[in-house]
Amino acid sequence: MSLNRKDLLGLEHLDKKDLQMILDSVGPFKSLFTRSVKKVPTLVGKTVVTLFYEPSTRTRNSFEIAAKRLSADVVNVAVNTSSVVKGESLIDTGKTLEAMKADYLIIRHSLAGAPDILARNLNSSIINAGDGFHEHPTQGLLDLYTIYEKKKKIKGLKVLLVGDILHSRVAKSNIWALTKMGAEIAVVGPPTLIPSDIEDLGVKVYYDLNEAIKKVDVVNILRIQLERQQENLFPSVHEYVELYQVTKERLAIAKPGVLIMHPGPMNRGIEISSDVADSPNAVINEQVTNGIAVRMAVLCLLKPKRKNASSD
Amino acid sequence: MSLNRKDLLGLEHLDKKDLQMILDSVGPFKSLFTRSVKKVPTLVGKTVVTLFYEPSTRTRNSFEIAAKRLSADVVNVAVNTSSVVKGESLIDTGKTLEAMKADYLIIRHSLAGAPDILARNLNSSIINAGDGFHEHPTQGLLDLYTIYEKKKKIKGLKVLLVGDILHSRVAKSNIWALTKMGAEIAVVGPPTLIPSDIEDLGVKVYYDLNEAIKKVDVVNILRIQLERQQENLFPSVHEYVELYQVTKERLAIAKPGVLIMHPGPMNRGIEISSDVADSPNAVINEQVTNGIAVRMAVLCLLKPKRKNASSD
Amino acid sequence: MSLNRKDLLGLEHLDKKDLQMILDSVGPFKSLFTRSVKKVPTLVGKTVVTLFYEPSTRTRNSFEIAAKRLSADVVNVAVNTSSVVKGESLIDTGKTLEAMKADYLIIRHSLAGAPDILARNLNSSIINAGDGFHEHPTQGLLDLYTIYEKKKKIKGLKVLLVGDILHSRVAKSNIWALTKMGAEIAVVGPPTLIPSDIEDLGVKVYYDLNEAIKKVDVVNILRIQLERQQENLFPSVHEYVELYQVTKERLAIAKPGVLIMHPGPMNRGIEISSDVADSPNAVINEQVTNGIAVRMAVLCLLKPKRKNASSD
Repeated sequence: MSLNRKDLLGLEHLDKKDLQMILDSVGPFKSLFTRSVKKVPTLVGKTVVTLFYEPSTRTRNSFEIAAKRLSADVVNVAVNTSSVVKGESLIDTGKTLEAMKADYLIIRHSLAGAPDILARNLNSSIINAGDGFHEHPTQGLLDLYTIYEKKKKIKGLKVLLVGDILHSRVAKSNIWALTKMGAEIAVVGPPTLIPSDIEDLGVKVYYDLNEAIKKVDVVNILRIQLERQQENLFPSVHEYVELYQVTKERLAIAKPGVLIMHPGPMNRGIEISSDVADSPNAVINEQVTNGIAVRMAVLCLLKPKRKNASSD
Repeated sequence: MSLNRKDLLGLEHLDKKDLQMILDSVGPFKSLFTRSVKKVPTLVGKTVVTLFYEPSTRTRNSFEIAAKRLSADVVNVAVNTSSVVKGESLIDTGKTLEAMKADYLIIRHSLAGAPDILARNLNSSIINAGDGFHEHPTQGLLDLYTIYEKKKKIKGLKVLLVGDILHSRVAKSNIWALTKMGAEIAVVGPPTLIPSDIEDLGVKVYYDLNEAIKKVDVVNILRIQLERQQENLFPSVHEYVELYQVTKERLAIAKPGVLIMHPGPMNRGIEISSDVADSPNAVINEQVTNGIAVRMAVLCLLKPKRKNASSD
Repeated sequence: MSLNRKDLLGLEHLDKKDLQMILDSVGPFKSLFTRSVKKVPTLVGKTVVTLFYEPSTRTRNSFEIAAKRLSADVVNVAVNTSSVVKGESLIDTGKTLEAMKADYLIIRHSLAGAPDILARNLNSSIINAGDGFHEHPTQGLLDLYTIYEKKKKIKGLKVLLVGDILHSRVAKSNIWALTKMGAEIAVVGPPTLIPSDIEDLGVKVYYDLNEAIKKVDVVNILRIQLERQQENLFPSVHEYVELYQVTKERLAIAKPGVLIMHPGPMNRGIEISSDVADSPNAVINEQVTNGIAVRMAVLCLLKPKRKNASSD
């Protein structure tokens, strides 16, 4: 079983069949690593390089653990101690890592499209771990899988994304994946933080959370980037909390059994109230566990380009 | 053989039987990794996460090497590149790492009690690698083991701790372990750096090093935190050297064969003279070697909580 | 097969027979890791510590990958999060890592001679990964091997080093290795950046690149340290580009089939034009691949001192 592609750059490029294949693969990996025998030899002798131009614990560690459970060797390239500082071009950095026989290059970059540039220029498999405001495909996949695991289907579900849609790569990857699988997507947030053309993707737009949350099956709450608050482009934190914090009271307007999701790290008391974060509806830690299983599946399903040992 | 507890938070909570069990376990690990076959499969498939909120080489690397020799996978979470920066709460960070199926979480934190908070909230085994001015239990254990290995007993030995007792978690863990095992503990240092209630623990207090060092079997010299000097709470460095540096001359007042210990990193010429650091009495590098064996033993003796694969 | 020495401090100390032994060993490692089975158990249970006092991606990652392919455990000591900050001496840091049973210590340091200090004081094998303006022996070896692989010989070849010879440890290691193996070395660069005594090593000195590049077999282009430009000791970047950039036009003056080498990371458009970097003459990525094979060979050829398990 294989995705018949060497890279995972975004969920926009996957079709329904690809997404279903990934959903079907995750379960076995999850049951594997949540039991006592957590390590399998699938990727013995493979080298996985993480190349993160933006700080991250969650995503980098998740990929690292996934790769180690598949018995790959993992090398972490920290950007602030690297030749990146010395002004080397992205492609040259990639070529160097490829020349070191990196089989997988997992990249996070503030520039949308950076993973695509590497994918076009390298034989190594490129996995996008978040690029600018563009996509974060493995987050989209783990959100998709978590919903699928809990609700046993995707088609026909009503999913609401709450918050800063404009700057969220998580939102974009969710929208691509869920739409392709037949969910109905709505977004809600301050008008300044909703992209003007998002309705073209078949997404319903709300500005009033109390209105938007009615009868939804899933609420996926985006993280507010407090560091962005400085820019004054926003409602104030106080206004945001007032209008868009997901609270117990607002949850009561959704369906009973509504799933509460958050990609983390959470700002408790800002975009989500603490009681909601700790409620039985929340599957936030389950998302983290699924993230490892999803990344194991992705590492196994990508199809590395056969290399010519003599020429590269 | 097992400690029948999932966490190691401090030596205050261990009894004499626990400490003796640890002492008895360290030897086999030490003989193992100091020979040619240094790797055993005991922890294959287990994930050990180090979560250090304060910089460290010695302790973090020691845990990392110990875990790798037991064939565990090790993931280092560097705090300055992590979501900790993004304001996530300690418990949420812990829950995330637990959701990634971290079997062991090794934490260093400037806040006394931080490891206890994690231990109460997580199923993962928590090992305290130093919390504020509270405890540093694996350092206490490696000091205990080093004395035991060299002197063949603990009971009845006279052990002197020299320096800044007030701010030293190493001192506290040493006092708990040695007292429980029947040693006689004394401390010496500037009056401003001796906790007022320390005599309640059965510890003798001196302010004059020449007086205190008489006939002791072991001198454990604490590191002076030069960075703390700024605060002017202290005698000056010059005064400290004059009054409390352990020198060859002062050593002559102790018993012949007195052990010289230091948790490292040393400030040669400040709390310890270079000739003492390099004297045959010094077992400072031996402490480092024992640190790995002790940490291997601790990783093996803790009893992980059985996890429910379906619910977490 | 073994080099009969425990350390690799510089190529100045190796003789022709040593260099030939290394050249003969690299091929098998290269063919091994460029095929599907990339991992061998040669160093199972050995601990390799990288101790980098200067930032680096390329060299540190290359050593890390080389060691992992030999099944060693690798521990990275990042200096800015380490006890180095706390003022510990270099020898004490080394002694600590030795006490942790580090079999190999790979050090990069801004101080020429730092690796020698460790080698004299420790039983662990020390590998110099670059010390000040002194040597970078594994870079010298990978350059040597790359030339040997492509030209099938070293003796009699004309090799030109271009750029800042004075501050380049890469240049020094190249000169030692190539001279010993019978190549003719020339250097070219601004007069301020050529050491006055370099002709004593049998090296020809040029200041005019168009003159120097005539009929050479190999052009090894050194990286311009843009950060050094601040010091105003230099020609300006503009002048440097004008006089010393290796361009397509200048390449035409060299022999057909001339090898273009660069230790990376490249400043395209400064010391090398982009079309030269991407020309078929360039073996820059091949150098990176060979770097891993060379480092695997070095790790296997050094002869660790037999340790006395009871005394250290």
